Amino acid sequence: MTTLGITDGNVLHPDMSVSEADVLIDQSTGEIIDVDREIGMSGDEQLDATDSLVIPGLINAHTHLAMTLLRGYADDKPLETWLREDIWPIESELTPEDVRVGTQLGMAEMIRSGTTGFTDMYFYVPEIAAAVEAAGMRARLGHGVVTVGKADAAVEADIEEGLRVARDVADSDRISTAVMPHSLTTVSESSLSEMAARARDIGVPIHTHVNETKDEVEPIVEEQGVRPVEYARSCGLFHSEDYIAHGVHLNTSEIDILAETGAGVVHCPASNMKLASGMAPVQAMLDAGVTVGLGTDGVAANNDLDMFGEMRDAAMVGKIAADDASAVAAPDVVRMATQGSADCVGFESGQIEPGAPADLAVLDLDRPHLTPAHDLVSHLAYAATGADVRHTVCDGRVLMRERELLTIDAATVRAEAATRAADLVARAE
Amino acid sequence: MTTLGITDGNVLHPDMSVSEADVLIDQSTGEIIDVDREIGMSGDEQLDATDSLVIPGLINAHTHLAMTLLRGYADDKPLETWLREDIWPIESELTPEDVRVGTQLGMAEMIRSGTTGFTDMYFYVPEIAAAVEAAGMRARLGHGVVTVGKADAAVEADIEEGLRVARDVADSDRISTAVMPHSLTTVSESSLSEMAARARDIGVPIHTHVNETKDEVEPIVEEQGVRPVEYARSCGLFHSEDYIAHGVHLNTSEIDILAETGAGVVHCPASNMKLASGMAPVQAMLDAGVTVGLGTDGVAANNDLDMFGEMRDAAMVGKIAADDASAVAAPDVVRMATQGSADCVGFESGQIEPGAPADLAVLDLDRPHLTPAHDLVSHLAYAATGADVRHTVCDGRVLMRERELLTIDAATVRAEAATRAADLVARAE
Ligand SMILES: [Zn+2]
Ligand SMILES: [Zn+2]
Repeated sequence: MTTLGITDGNVLHPDMSVSEADVLIDQSTGEIIDVDREIGMSGDEQLDATDSLVIPGLINAHTHLAMTLLRGYADDKPLETWLREDIWPIESELTPEDVRVGTQLGMAEMIRSGTTGFTDMYFYVPEIAAAVEAAGMRARLGHGVVTVGKADAAVEADIEEGLRVARDVADSDRISTAVMPHSLTTVSESSLSEMAARARDIGVPIHTHVNETKDEVEPIVEEQGVRPVEYARSCGLFHSEDYIAHGVHLNTSEIDILAETGAGVVHCPASNMKLASGMAPVQAMLDAGVTVGLGTDGVAANNDLDMFGEMRDAAMVGKIAADDASAVAAPDVVRMATQGSADCVGFESGQIEPGAPADLAVLDLDRPHLTPAHDLVSHLAYAATGADVRHTVCDGRVLMRERELLTIDAATVRAEAATRAADLVARAE
Repeated sequence: MTTLGITDGNVLHPDMSVSEADVLIDQSTGEIIDVDREIGMSGDEQLDATDSLVIPGLINAHTHLAMTLLRGYADDKPLETWLREDIWPIESELTPEDVRVGTQLGMAEMIRSGTTGFTDMYFYVPEIAAAVEAAGMRARLGHGVVTVGKADAAVEADIEEGLRVARDVADSDRISTAVMPHSLTTVSESSLSEMAARARDIGVPIHTHVNETKDEVEPIVEEQGVRPVEYARSCGLFHSEDYIAHGVHLNTSEIDILAETGAGVVHCPASNMKLASGMAPVQAMLDAGVTVGLGTDGVAANNDLDMFGEMRDAAMVGKIAADDASAVAAPDVVRMATQGSADCVGFESGQIEPGAPADLAVLDLDRPHLTPAHDLVSHLAYAATGADVRHTVCDGRVLMRERELLTIDAATVRAEAATRAADLVARAE
């Protein structure tokens, strides 16, 4: 057994209290052995956390990572136009190698900003899985299936690819899979029902976009005569391990269904604001007992992967949505980015405690913008950014030490990404 | 004449285009001599801008800087409760030395995040001015005057202090002043009229909070029978050099008055979201031709001074407010944080061009989250943070070089701020 000690820091506990403590990690199992004073120096190796705060690694519960290559390519447009005119045409040009590099670029950014785990919905998933395996992050991966507007053979092929990925891609205890129909309006009723049934056979969760915009609600209400969440339930969705992205336009009865079933909702506030999709009723979901996590969505709609920004956005827009400054408070958003996301995605991480996976980040508090220290949970929600992260650890392995990435060659990836992004635009135009 | 060359970078021009160029600065006048290729090495000294973007120094057009000491002290509360129960009681304990240290801490944070100029409304302004003079930033300072609920003698004393500051504090070409009645509801009609008239005598602008919350609109409409902006105009406000903070609840006729008079509006999106004050009609103001700048407001309502966050927030919430993803676009918010703020406050800075004040920031583009480079203006609005700033220059003087602060002893200020903040809480409780 090789052990790692995180020494002389402050630790954020699961109840959102903070105290001075070391963390001792078993690197062979990837688990936290103990959290206590003065135990860090007994480790074989140390990470210094002086004047720092040790937090659970943040979990980005919904993204499309390779879209990093499209960062800033098309901004300030509504979802439908943006997807049809800009994003889908250029995405159709992406090669497996592009997806690998875009994913690596995204992981570099995530590790640098204290994120240790994520959900990715994209395509060329075997390439993504290999990159995640090498980078040392924790991920649930899936192939996003779109069926509407496609010929039968293409639909069948896409569904089979989604199921193949869900069944075969997980080849490490850090990498798991889900069946991922793209959304309730881009997948037909029969395909959705088929995918749900087969996800149960394989034993993996279902992850999909639900009620992101009004345009995803009205057609379903018209055709089916029921709200989208009810419709999706009738197709077999919403077992407790399932989770949806967005949930911007949910009514009370839909919130109640999500709370009852235990299915999670991944709130993506930046994407929802940038695409003017709307403001999710997050405080209402929390009040109803829905499991709420946080995600950035794809970079093209954000335009970054910094989960500190997402916490801040969630707290900020949550108050406007509820017309109440006490809504979606600092501890709520910190919980959403850690335990909430973990519960959505089905990770054991998200809390620093003995026996939990050693997925964590160490923030430097020696910064003017994190001074004074009246309330460190407030700082996490409102004042810290990803650039304050000193070290990032996942599964007991150090992925970043004193801001140096150890599992990704950032310079090479950045250069490759720049070249590939330029080539991509040239091909698409 | 001593000259400074900024070499090998990309420059953001006033029309929001970007090109490879050096910047040559006359440090004796504090002005930009020229912007062109290959001129930087002719300077006596150099700042390297390889793989970097040179932008106008950001201008935080509305803050209360010493409130850094209250960062995270009281969150998640609505404006009235928060001011009366938390902020005002603890502010009444602030000493001149507390204000000096809080201001220094704020300036350290601002310089580190590429801000070179600001407006401050607070008290103990001579101490603030001395700190600004030493730190090398550009500022318009004023004493915030509150008259309601005070005895006549106290009102007279506060007004006189405000006028004394406006007349006497400016002792450098970087420091200017304004008369600053706190808001339309915390200053009586007669006091507001008196201050306006005397501001004209002194020849300085008026800066005040206007229509931040609904509670600041309704009482005026009831008592005066007109909207607040009309009421304030009848008291003598809204010369073209005047500027207001917030303007969240403005109707069309009020927007028209502001556009006609040329008075500026400082949009403070983070504060407005965090206090659930509402969403300012920013796109409508831009459409009407109002001069719109950006500010963080006090740290206790934000909770940081990073103007990159403010640009992002403005773009994000501006789209939700307008229900239009094309509203408040990336170039709009970059313009608001530079030229717009400069026009509000009455600074000559905000643009990089020959003859302009040499107030600028150099951002490191060699970052995963700023890759690829489809659109650098988009990166400024959506992906960059203050931590990406390498160098900050104000009035031709280097205030930060490769992230090292040169005019503020950050370690000392941070330690002093931590001690004073703790003492302050102990005194207030
Ligand atoms: Zn998505
Ligand atoms: Zn203010």
